[in-house]
Amino acid sequence: MDNFLEAAIEEAKAGLAEGGIPIGSVLVYKDKIIGRGHNRRIQKGSTILHAEIDAIENAGREYVPFFKESRLYTTLSPCSMCTGAILLYKIPHVIIGENQNFRGEEELLESRGVKVDVINGIECVNLMKDFILNNPELWNEDIGEK
Amino acid sequence: MDNFLEAAIEEAKAGLAEGGIPIGSVLVYKDKIIGRGHNRRIQKGSTILHAEIDAIENAGREYVPFFKESRLYTTLSPCSMCTGAILLYKIPHVIIGENQNFRGEEELLESRGVKVDVINGIECVNLMKDFILNNPELWNEDIGEK
Repeated sequence: MDNFLEAAIEEAKAGLAEGGIPIGSVLVYKDKIIGRGHNRRIQKGSTILHAEIDAIENAGREYVPFFKESRLYTTLSPCSMCTGAILLYKIPHVIIGENQNFRGEEELLESRGVKVDVINGIECVNLMKDFILNNPELWNEDIGEK
Repeated sequence: MDNFLEAAIEEAKAGLAEGGIPIGSVLVYKDKIIGRGHNRRIQKGSTILHAEIDAIENAGREYVPFFKESRLYTTLSPCSMCTGAILLYKIPHVIIGENQNFRGEEELLESRGVKVDVINGIECVNLMKDFILNNPELWNEDIGEK
C-alpha cells in the first residue's frame, strides 16, 4: 500500500485511540507530508475539524502556495465541506481510502478537474464499518444527518 | 438593514480591528444567534477559519441538530469551502452581504436547494474593496489564488 495512505490510516487510528472518529488525512507536497490530521469532533468538541480540514489547517499558511501542487490522502470519501476546501485551494489530486461506508462529493471533485483515486482498502473499510456500527449517533452528527 | 446582517458586519469590523481580513458571519436559529465568527487567517495563522467556518465552529456541537433549520448570514459571498460546510449541515438559507468583490459558489448552493439572498449593501462592499486594495497578497491567499 502507498506509504502516504498508510500515514492517513495511522492518523485515523490515532483519532480512534483518543476516543474519536477514525478518519485520517495527510497532505503531501513533492513526496513530503506537509500537513497531517484526523477528525477531532469528539476530542475538541469541533463541528468543522474533519480529518481533511485538520490536515489543511495543520499544514499552515506558509504552505498555501504549494497546495495547488499537492495530493490529499484521506481514509474516507470527503464530505461536501472537505471537498469545498480541496476546491478552494485547488488541490489537484485526492486519494481516498474507501467510499463504501460513505460516498462524498467525488463527482463534484471530478467535475472541477480534480483527479480522484479510490482504493477501497479493507483496513479503511473495516475501521469505519466498526465505528459506525458502534456509534451511529456520532456518525450521523459528523455527516450532518442528526 | 436586517439586524443579523448588522451583527455579521460587526464581526467583520472586529476582525479588521484585530488586523484581520474583514469578513464576518452569524448563524441564526429561530431569531437567536447561535454562532458568530470572523475570518481568523491572520490572527490564528489559520488556513481554514473563514468567517462562516468560524461561526459554525463557534456554534458548537450541541447546535448541530438545529443547523438544518438555521440561517447563515455572511458579509461576503461564500467560497467553496464555506459553501461545502453549508451543504454538509443542510443550512437552508444564506444571506450574503455582498458579491461584488468576490462571487463564491452561489449557483452550487442554489442547485442544491439552498435559498440565497444577496443584499449588496454599500458597507459590506466598501469593507472588502478597501481591504483588497490595500492587501492584495493576503486576499489572494485567502481565496486560494496565491
